[in-house]
Amino acid sequence: MSADTLHFVVLIGSLRKDSINAAVARTLPSLVPEGVNVSFLGSIGDFPHYNADVQDEGFPEPVLKMAAQIKASDGVIIVTPEYNYSVPGVLKNAIDWLSRLSPQPFTGKPLAIQTASPGAIGGARAQYHLRQMLVFLDAFVLNKPEIMIGQSTQKVDPEKLVLTDAKTGAYITKQISALADLARRLRS
Amino acid sequence: MSADTLHFVVLIGSLRKDSINAAVARTLPSLVPEGVNVSFLGSIGDFPHYNADVQDEGFPEPVLKMAAQIKASDGVIIVTPEYNYSVPGVLKNAIDWLSRLSPQPFTGKPLAIQTASPGAIGGARAQYHLRQMLVFLDAFVLNKPEIMIGQSTQKVDPEKLVLTDAKTGAYITKQISALADLARRLRS
Amino acid sequence: MSADTLHFVVLIGSLRKDSINAAVARTLPSLVPEGVNVSFLGSIGDFPHYNADVQDEGFPEPVLKMAAQIKASDGVIIVTPEYNYSVPGVLKNAIDWLSRLSPQPFTGKPLAIQTASPGAIGGARAQYHLRQMLVFLDAFVLNKPEIMIGQSTQKVDPEKLVLTDAKTGAYITKQISALADLARRLRS
Amino acid sequence: MSADTLHFVVLIGSLRKDSINAAVARTLPSLVPEGVNVSFLGSIGDFPHYNADVQDEGFPEPVLKMAAQIKASDGVIIVTPEYNYSVPGVLKNAIDWLSRLSPQPFTGKPLAIQTASPGAIGGARAQYHLRQMLVFLDAFVLNKPEIMIGQSTQKVDPEKLVLTDAKTGAYITKQISALADLARRLRS
Repeated sequence: MSADTLHFVVLIGSLRKDSINAAVARTLPSLVPEGVNVSFLGSIGDFPHYNADVQDEGFPEPVLKMAAQIKASDGVIIVTPEYNYSVPGVLKNAIDWLSRLSPQPFTGKPLAIQTASPGAIGGARAQYHLRQMLVFLDAFVLNKPEIMIGQSTQKVDPEKLVLTDAKTGAYITKQISALADLARRLRS
Repeated sequence: MSADTLHFVVLIGSLRKDSINAAVARTLPSLVPEGVNVSFLGSIGDFPHYNADVQDEGFPEPVLKMAAQIKASDGVIIVTPEYNYSVPGVLKNAIDWLSRLSPQPFTGKPLAIQTASPGAIGGARAQYHLRQMLVFLDAFVLNKPEIMIGQSTQKVDPEKLVLTDAKTGAYITKQISALADLARRLRS
Repeated sequence: MSADTLHFVVLIGSLRKDSINAAVARTLPSLVPEGVNVSFLGSIGDFPHYNADVQDEGFPEPVLKMAAQIKASDGVIIVTPEYNYSVPGVLKNAIDWLSRLSPQPFTGKPLAIQTASPGAIGGARAQYHLRQMLVFLDAFVLNKPEIMIGQSTQKVDPEKLVLTDAKTGAYITKQISALADLARRLRS
Repeated sequence: MSADTLHFVVLIGSLRKDSINAAVARTLPSLVPEGVNVSFLGSIGDFPHYNADVQDEGFPEPVLKMAAQIKASDGVIIVTPEYNYSVPGVLKNAIDWLSRLSPQPFTGKPLAIQTASPGAIGGARAQYHLRQMLVFLDAFVLNKPEIMIGQSTQKVDPEKLVLTDAKTGAYITKQISALADLARRLRS
């Protein structure tokens, strides 16, 4: 790994074991371009419900750990389903915790969004809600290409739980290359 | 209580003990118009994180109980803070659980939204995200008046934790009257 | 036409002669259920750009005419493309004019949205923007079924400029039936 | 003017002569930090309604001129009112025209948003709609500080039509400094 290698961390928005979105995330290491590597953040299921009274007693360990990993990274990739036309509550809850830290870990961080859903729309509605949150969090959210994987159940191997659709894979590689370009441009 | 009395249930989006939004909610019984009464749903903090694998083992008791209370009601009032330009993750998580039930409890239900925040905008950003979710949930969300309580910390008694601002109280009464009108119109 | 017949008016968001959305709109008379008829509002291209100084000299005739037709109707169907992830400026401009009238014509009006686009997402992004506007305008916007026609160029006859996709047509009939149910429920 | 001077262009979303937003824009030259100058784009009132049939006959002169000025600039400042919980139709119409050009002038352009409204919310709802459009247009939209000028009529001299509120002026200077930082960072 050269000094120029970028390290992106991956945040998964679903807790389900056989999650299609987790399957997409799991495929990322084989899709990232030269000069990029990825690692996975811990489970957002390990965070308690956000509660300012709990925060007053000290940030939970998994929150602190995830924040440190985000801070140390060159960028973040969020891979998430859409629930009820927005992001999953459990993902928003993780964001609510992370946002309370100072320094706030998303500040100035290059970030890309990927959503997959069984329907035609591929999670688009969740993406624009997430983007609005990330204005407040002051992240550098990549505009394009947007990865909204429709008919997602047909694009993942149900046994191996990895993305098998080559066209989607190529788009993802293109997105991560664009994220790498953005990260390099911003840190120069 | 006459046969015509409407019964609304109140869902609170914050878990914090001294929550301003909980204080607003706590004041509702004294603000509702003639012919309306309100009761409080259980804490959304009692729901686990939504996970389809957990759901497959059976819906948690607090989810079933809240769903039954919503179903039995004439309408729902959601009182919530805005976190990170959207609804709190913990509130969205409750919605994610409730949305999986069949029949889905929000279907056709008259619903009003109230948000309070310390800043000028009063939680408006959370309201439009919530409205988008409620399209999917097929609720009848009241358009007007919108209750967005800005500078909320100045409008609540910090000891008694009740709303003290009379103008805001009058707006809330007006909103609940409009919700009652909508509920009566829809059930006729 | 019996006393119970509902009359809906159709507002088209595109000015292009061969517009796919206009083609969908043009097909509506053959898709509406028993007891419903539709007519077409004038072209939004006949409105000038909204300008309060112009308004001060008097509302333009086409604005007044369209407002009167909306007021006299039992509901509105908006059929529009998505431009730049939102509604066309020309449609928003028409809304800006109509919204300034008193009484404001959309108030309390049952309303359904249809969008068509060549891509997979079918105009969904425009729909949620339009819904946010219609909160302010206090319309009763139908939640479901949502009509977002993806791959629209394959679903319209390019010569006759009418919708030819039977499945989409059936969805539209279902939506207009739901709008009729809503209109009947609200006027009782 | 040194080689390092940044040149930003200002796009105004209102056509009204005494527009508060135009007054804010008019004050920008006196608020920009050292090393920045601003000039004003032409009136969006000079664009016809967007219509692909008109486009097929050639882009109107005012569209081409504005696009060239945006392309030649180091960044864009949009100052606009909120109409009906979104951007004015006339502003969206200008965006619809500009977006059809190739190269598309907003691509990669640093951009800041300012809204003013007489109410408390200061145009926030229009800003998030505009941000969603600018994802498609691939602009670099500044996250913070957000300029949402509430109670705007009290902050502008009604005769001279310039911003007189010093606190708002200082925020604007801070925003333009942040935009300049972003522009310098991206071009390096």
